Amino acid sequence: MKRLFRQQLNLSPKQYEGYWQRILREGVKAGELRADLDVPVVTYGLLGMLNWAYKWYKPRGRLGVREVAEQFSTLALAGLSVASPKTRPSRKRRR
Amino acid sequence: MKRLFRQQLNLSPKQYEGYWQRILREGVKAGELRADLDVPVVTYGLLGMLNWAYKWYKPRGRLGVREVAEQFSTLALAGLSVASPKTRPSRKRRR
Repeated sequence: MKRLFRQQLNLSPKQYEGYWQRILREGVKAGELRADLDVPVVTYGLLGMLNWAYKWYKPRGRLGVREVAEQFSTLALAGLSVASPKTRPSRKRRR
Repeated sequence: MKRLFRQQLNLSPKQYEGYWQRILREGVKAGELRADLDVPVVTYGLLGMLNWAYKWYKPRGRLGVREVAEQFSTLALAGLSVASPKTRPSRKRRR
């Protein structure tokens, strides 16, 4: 697992996790993501959601990778956003 | 894993997953959960979020089981609800 991480992402799992946390923190700071959640726990939750996919995802299953990614990003963005858009945001809020 | 499931829950993993799907479907039917998500994929996402915890949760860590459960349920409910309540106050421990 660790070797695969390094090969594919050129990151250690810890670094990968760190990037996620940084992205979430930036979103909170920008006022786009809710500030009442615990960033490390939420990061683990999201990574779990993604990492667990190897248990169930079937390349020839009902939904393709893109559709699964869309489901998960819709769910996660709705859960994390301050504005909680119920449709996939087509454009970013202007700042 | 399968044996543990049966011992602890008296359910097979498939049955357990089936219960989750049923709960989500009932929520959608009741108009409480959004209808635009794919129930099986969302179920896998939520189960992944929970099941992955064995990778990172530390009983003597910063947050207790109850707090992690609260974080996850806040996140999941916000992601799944039609109304998307942002109201649940998270009592994040500050140190």
